[in-house]
Amino acid sequence: MKSAILTVGTEILFGQIVNTNAAYLSQQLNGLGFDVLYHFTVGDNPDRLKRALETCAKECDLIITTGGLGPTQDDLTKEVISEFAGCRLTINQEAMDRIEGYFKRSGREMTENNVKQAYVPEGAICMQNDHGSAPGFICKVDNKTIMSFPGPPKEMMPMFENSAIPYLSTMSEGVIYSKFIKTVGIGESLLETEIMDIVDAQTDPTIATYAKDGEVTMRLTSKRSSAEEAKAAVDEMATKVHERVGNYIYTEDERSFSEVILDKMRDKGLSLSSAESCTGGLFADAFISIPGSSDVFDRALVTYSNTAKMQELGVKEETLAKFGAVSSQTAEEMVSGLYEASGSDICVAVTGLAGPGGETLEKPVGLVYTAILAGGKIRCTENRFGNMDRNAIRRRSMLAMMKLIYDYLEDR
Amino acid sequence: MKSAILTVGTEILFGQIVNTNAAYLSQQLNGLGFDVLYHFTVGDNPDRLKRALETCAKECDLIITTGGLGPTQDDLTKEVISEFAGCRLTINQEAMDRIEGYFKRSGREMTENNVKQAYVPEGAICMQNDHGSAPGFICKVDNKTIMSFPGPPKEMMPMFENSAIPYLSTMSEGVIYSKFIKTVGIGESLLETEIMDIVDAQTDPTIATYAKDGEVTMRLTSKRSSAEEAKAAVDEMATKVHERVGNYIYTEDERSFSEVILDKMRDKGLSLSSAESCTGGLFADAFISIPGSSDVFDRALVTYSNTAKMQELGVKEETLAKFGAVSSQTAEEMVSGLYEASGSDICVAVTGLAGPGGETLEKPVGLVYTAILAGGKIRCTENRFGNMDRNAIRRRSMLAMMKLIYDYLEDR
Repeated sequence: MKSAILTVGTEILFGQIVNTNAAYLSQQLNGLGFDVLYHFTVGDNPDRLKRALETCAKECDLIITTGGLGPTQDDLTKEVISEFAGCRLTINQEAMDRIEGYFKRSGREMTENNVKQAYVPEGAICMQNDHGSAPGFICKVDNKTIMSFPGPPKEMMPMFENSAIPYLSTMSEGVIYSKFIKTVGIGESLLETEIMDIVDAQTDPTIATYAKDGEVTMRLTSKRSSAEEAKAAVDEMATKVHERVGNYIYTEDERSFSEVILDKMRDKGLSLSSAESCTGGLFADAFISIPGSSDVFDRALVTYSNTAKMQELGVKEETLAKFGAVSSQTAEEMVSGLYEASGSDICVAVTGLAGPGGETLEKPVGLVYTAILAGGKIRCTENRFGNMDRNAIRRRSMLAMMKLIYDYLEDR
Repeated sequence: MKSAILTVGTEILFGQIVNTNAAYLSQQLNGLGFDVLYHFTVGDNPDRLKRALETCAKECDLIITTGGLGPTQDDLTKEVISEFAGCRLTINQEAMDRIEGYFKRSGREMTENNVKQAYVPEGAICMQNDHGSAPGFICKVDNKTIMSFPGPPKEMMPMFENSAIPYLSTMSEGVIYSKFIKTVGIGESLLETEIMDIVDAQTDPTIATYAKDGEVTMRLTSKRSSAEEAKAAVDEMATKVHERVGNYIYTEDERSFSEVILDKMRDKGLSLSSAESCTGGLFADAFISIPGSSDVFDRALVTYSNTAKMQELGVKEETLAKFGAVSSQTAEEMVSGLYEASGSDICVAVTGLAGPGGETLEKPVGLVYTAILAGGKIRCTENRFGNMDRNAIRRRSMLAMMKLIYDYLEDR
């Protein structure tokens, strides 16, 4: 079944609020087996809201609206929907009782405009609001279903979960199953080339790739008559994808790369430290931002100046003079010095040229050395991150450090 | 002038990504004097994209699209727009050269599908991409202007600022002048209360406040017949705002707090180091992410474990045992130890409880101590960041460290 999400609120068109409701509802609807064809946002303007309803109704069986159910003058969603449905608004006594009770309990005076909130289109199913005063409602216009929710996420989300999901479950045909497959170390276009025949042959399951900040995520989705069938179809495709690009895959759930590494290291009882130059604390932050990282993460020595590299990590002045700060020799001395200071089971180091200045013929911007010392052995890699800005290079450098750890843990 | 923002991407309809682009573009367009009538999101589906273009073009003079300019099969925005405009796609040589250069520099193989990215609708103005490979473009269809940007915010935002704002400024009637006033250390509602009469009396200039990640930014905007008039009106209002909340203002331009501090320190020839526990490298990252920060930033010792605090910073075991890691005593020993190690002109330290676990009656989640050692004196502050998640507390802690430095530099 086809659906659209219609958000009402001038504050969104001003950019004052990010439309997180649309993302939440999309996830929910997709999970329930609905295709979401459109997100549409209009301001508190009855004509445009009506046109948006008409546009959505042309193609969609289900229209979900959020916003514009409140007590003030510019809350017009109900009025427009009842006009669209050709019915009038009637008072819902349960909603009215709840609104009166709400004001009584809070000791605040109920103003006249709050009565307005208890009205819903005639014949609609009312969805009560446990976290605010404006109720939602479900109504039918021809063969289309319109469900209207209040705008604040704290009111909308519980109402959706309590009242909408049971209703929608009876409407949807089939069950959707999705799986994320997340990769590091391969670009989106190369990845797509590797799996092109799978992409080309897709009907169900479908496969979609998304690139963000140096990682590429694939989403495999199947819609079948039972959850088991859908899962089996997705798993079969996932196996094929693994055969092609398995070396770059780090997880099939929603965890970040650092979370996956942290979990693996915690399971093995290993400790972690980093010596960072160009990443400047990004690597440490990716771990310390995770609750419970203190089980694993010990310290990061962010030695940005050459003096700091010598003083904190014992990098030799001759090494810096002969090979430069951006060199495999410096990266190896950094990681060795870090191990001496911390004794952590896994030590990683990075030194690179993030630019924009400082480029030479031999050492272009984007040249980055990463090193790992674990199990008594050092491994160092050279990376060339071209045509990126400073912070993209720094992020890629961080991912390269993580890839060294991941590959060590996977013994590959 | 009327405008619409049209987002292209199935990942948004799946709810995998929140549409922050639409919020950013709305803020920008409103600031430039455009009314935003619609946000519209469609998937990677040519028919629906075409219908959405038609719907927007009925009412709007300007349509901004984001997404669907990449190299893969499902990137179809350009194809649909050129069909809508009744023109063909032609190769843009500068974009092609940039894409080839990108692959050459990064040493990666350029796949066939990357060539696709260099095509733009015939007659369009090409907007080069300094942060990725897909260029954007501006084209005219009848009297309507269509501007297309890549989807990743890191590519879209600089392209908008460098190429679109100068173009759009000539389209808008009258001259717009805007000024940002950025604050740290005051909440949005308190700030609004302080300037409420200015907000209430606004017609032109307008004043809008935006709260994000612990900072509140005001944007003052005037639209007059000449640039001088608009600037004079904004400056007059800015003076009033300064009188009310000047102690919290750190800049009137678009620099971040760390950029402002870095520039001040560079001017004075001062060096900077940090000792971080709960912030875990966030503070260092805020500086090292800025090009040229090596003039000022020396090192960060991210001592997450107690052992690291003792080994790297000389924090005493007795201090940790008696007062705990989260205490003013530990913060002061951290900053002293950092000064001994680095000799930096300004040393700052932080230790706090970011949670969610580890809370006690005396030490709630959000208790954070920050210390500065500069000019031979230590100053330590206690902060209580309640009712926030781990990473919001970590970010507030970082801002508190910066505020200590800023106030020292301003001698207040």
